[in-house]
Amino acid sequence: MLQGRLFVLGLGPGDPDLMTVKAARMIAAAPVVAFFAKQGRKGHARSMVDGQMRHDVEELRLEYPFTTEVAVEDPRYLAGMNEFYEVCAERLRVPLQTGRDVTLLCEGDPFLYGSAMYLFDRLRTECHAEIVPGVPGMSGCWSRANLPMTHGDDVLSVLPGTLDEESLLACLKLCDAAVLIKVGRNLPKICRVLRAAGLFERAVYVERGTMEGEHIVKLAERKDGPAPYFSMVLVPGRRYAR
Amino acid sequence: MLQGRLFVLGLGPGDPDLMTVKAARMIAAAPVVAFFAKQGRKGHARSMVDGQMRHDVEELRLEYPFTTEVAVEDPRYLAGMNEFYEVCAERLRVPLQTGRDVTLLCEGDPFLYGSAMYLFDRLRTECHAEIVPGVPGMSGCWSRANLPMTHGDDVLSVLPGTLDEESLLACLKLCDAAVLIKVGRNLPKICRVLRAAGLFERAVYVERGTMEGEHIVKLAERKDGPAPYFSMVLVPGRRYAR
Ligand SMILES: C[S@@+](CC[C@H](N)C(=O)[O-])C[C@H]1O[C@@H](n2cnc3c(N)ncnc32)[C@H](O)[C@@H]1O
Ligand SMILES: C[S@@+](CC[C@H](N)C(=O)[O-])C[C@H]1O[C@@H](n2cnc3c(N)ncnc32)[C@H](O)[C@@H]1O
Repeated sequence: MLQGRLFVLGLGPGDPDLMTVKAARMIAAAPVVAFFAKQGRKGHARSMVDGQMRHDVEELRLEYPFTTEVAVEDPRYLAGMNEFYEVCAERLRVPLQTGRDVTLLCEGDPFLYGSAMYLFDRLRTECHAEIVPGVPGMSGCWSRANLPMTHGDDVLSVLPGTLDEESLLACLKLCDAAVLIKVGRNLPKICRVLRAAGLFERAVYVERGTMEGEHIVKLAERKDGPAPYFSMVLVPGRRYAR
Repeated sequence: MLQGRLFVLGLGPGDPDLMTVKAARMIAAAPVVAFFAKQGRKGHARSMVDGQMRHDVEELRLEYPFTTEVAVEDPRYLAGMNEFYEVCAERLRVPLQTGRDVTLLCEGDPFLYGSAMYLFDRLRTECHAEIVPGVPGMSGCWSRANLPMTHGDDVLSVLPGTLDEESLLACLKLCDAAVLIKVGRNLPKICRVLRAAGLFERAVYVERGTMEGEHIVKLAERKDGPAPYFSMVLVPGRRYAR
């Protein structure tokens, strides 16, 4: 067993004020902080803890190997990401071996589609690992949109926009409320599917919820143009539909 | 318009340390704090903020009219709850009218099946209303259970155990990961449906996640006996299934 402990911290939807008291305290005390970042960017999770870390903190920047050069559907993407996570795990093992605790930052809530899970999966049997939940991005988004999502026995589904049209439609037909994440390039497809399900008029588009540059608008009133990484579409449940 | 503002605060899954920094600060400053409570109980949300409120705070205890005397299926239940929420809204209007801000406490995240939504729905057009999201109960539960829930393009569904067997089964068949809430008396039905869907062996039962008396066990290994209000069943997604 490695002597150091792994803490995976959910940082919430974007506004640093929406971090948990526990996460804030742990960040202020962490000797080693690891975070993912895109090439040429500071790293979103890293930006959220600016000025909150120890002065002598050791930072482990885990830089994604590609951004858009390799498509997600390309087999090289999966292989490349797999190798990347292996290298990351190896880098985290170095401080863990010498008994230093590592704090891995994660946007939103870690176990909800977070990349941090890929390192947790690799290291959980080798050291003490603990997850600190965070406010999910979707909770931040529907709160800012003033959109009560689910009442009574509404079914809520979280649907990645990367799914094919047929699967999305089947899922939308069965649930009452839906959250469509991973919007980006998938927005035109998402709009088509929502129209087919008769939900387009009810849908709300949220970009950068709780962050600087937040933009919330009915999907039907959204101006054309590309959707950024931090964007989602919300479909509130039955009570709202009445 | 009423002069006072309504703040609906999500308090997280149970452990007060999992409140957001924002919620903790707002509770410490709130002149009027409202909360729901069952008859004969202190109120779970109220307990979570023990010792954190102003000494001169005005507390509005909103006591549910019935616990189990009237069944949820009974038409008197719906009528009674409706009247109850009307009375609650009226009580909140009193301080709001005199320009005093009211802070309404809510377990987990307010817009995820929270009772607070029924007051928000009634008051939102009469005053400035703001929602502070919280860590949902389910995020607390799957983090404590060390259960990464959704990877890649997994579909996650949140299913109230109050639904009928057929609906539950249809939803389970279509999603990859599921959270079954409102377990209580519905546990035998939930077990039957999970067996029918071939998911029973993968399911994890979490009682009082992040709270005192927390109990986490594979559903298949759970001893018989009634499930309390704070219990849920988690079915992790595809990666976990491999
Ligand atoms: C890989 S998932 C990670 C989710 C994260 N672990 C969470 O709990 O929110 C990233 C997706 O979540 C959505 N998202 C997360 N935070 C958001 C925010 N503040 N505003 C809009 N979308 C957000 C976007 O759809 C984005 O593509
Ligand atoms: C009416 S819903 C309210 C959910 C709340 N607004 C939230 O975001 O978690 C209540 C249900 O959530 C589940 N629940 C909430 N917190 C829980 C916890 N800490 N442990 C187990 N179950 C919990 C239970 O199934 C319970 O019946």
